[in-house]
Amino acid sequence: MRFLGIDPGIAIVGFGFVDKIGSKVTPVQYGCIQTEAHTPEEERLLHVYEGMVQLIDKYKPDAVALEKLFFNRNVTTAMSVSQARGVMVLAAAQKGLPIAEYTPMQIKQAIVGYGKAEKRQVQEMVKMFLRLQVIPKPDDVADALAVAVCHAHSYTLNSKLNEVLRK
Amino acid sequence: MRFLGIDPGIAIVGFGFVDKIGSKVTPVQYGCIQTEAHTPEEERLLHVYEGMVQLIDKYKPDAVALEKLFFNRNVTTAMSVSQARGVMVLAAAQKGLPIAEYTPMQIKQAIVGYGKAEKRQVQEMVKMFLRLQVIPKPDDVADALAVAVCHAHSYTLNSKLNEVLRK
Repeated sequence: MRFLGIDPGIAIVGFGFVDKIGSKVTPVQYGCIQTEAHTPEEERLLHVYEGMVQLIDKYKPDAVALEKLFFNRNVTTAMSVSQARGVMVLAAAQKGLPIAEYTPMQIKQAIVGYGKAEKRQVQEMVKMFLRLQVIPKPDDVADALAVAVCHAHSYTLNSKLNEVLRK
Repeated sequence: MRFLGIDPGIAIVGFGFVDKIGSKVTPVQYGCIQTEAHTPEEERLLHVYEGMVQLIDKYKPDAVALEKLFFNRNVTTAMSVSQARGVMVLAAAQKGLPIAEYTPMQIKQAIVGYGKAEKRQVQEMVKMFLRLQVIPKPDDVADALAVAVCHAHSYTLNSKLNEVLRK
């Protein structure tokens, strides 16, 4: 089963595809979609949407998960990133993919086993889980892989739970 | 020339198409796209996007304008509405339409001639401009028509200004 993890943004959208076979999770592809700061908003949204559509068409995930956005102060940034998040969710929804969302705390809990873990600890665990040589850069890519691993893990747990409940 | 005005939202998206021929502005079609509160976010975004694509395909506007979003406090609402706004902008951008944005103050200034006008005054002026029998309901529809009228007005002014500057 293939999972796509997304770290939403408007300048940088991190993405990571992982496969889960049995209990083994392997990386398939990861990277980021980038948009230029001084281009019109509509061009940036179009670029993010088209990039996401191409990735989904190429790597055909079975499920998608996004990191939940948190903004305490800067409403302008929150609105800008949310617009981009909207077109990402749309791209996945148009393919009928199930979409999940995890808070940073849920991701840390799933990866490190501790909801208040440091960013670096999460990155090291993701690197280890996926047997990567180095931590992917920029952070957005590592974060996207963390969401993908988190979802691969939770999805299986939820499926098993549902199986047990059905019996 | 045909203008589409949009009042962005996630539960209710107001839209209004107006034609401007000479100095006369006439209504073409107006209404709203509505989404159910208790459906998954991705379904709501898909519904808004598809509704917008259908409207643009049917009424073929030459230019689009949206009311600028303002949120002081509720970041959650700001993020939800911004996601929807993202898919609206995407729908227009995919057709290569020029997209403008007006603040409520700019709209009031253009319609009533006073940036701090009451909502009701704006609605009455829109009704008069467009020779409507009644003020359209809900407010989102009247607001969308106000954006469309504002854009029809400003667009012509800008075009004339550019003409003068080119001479």
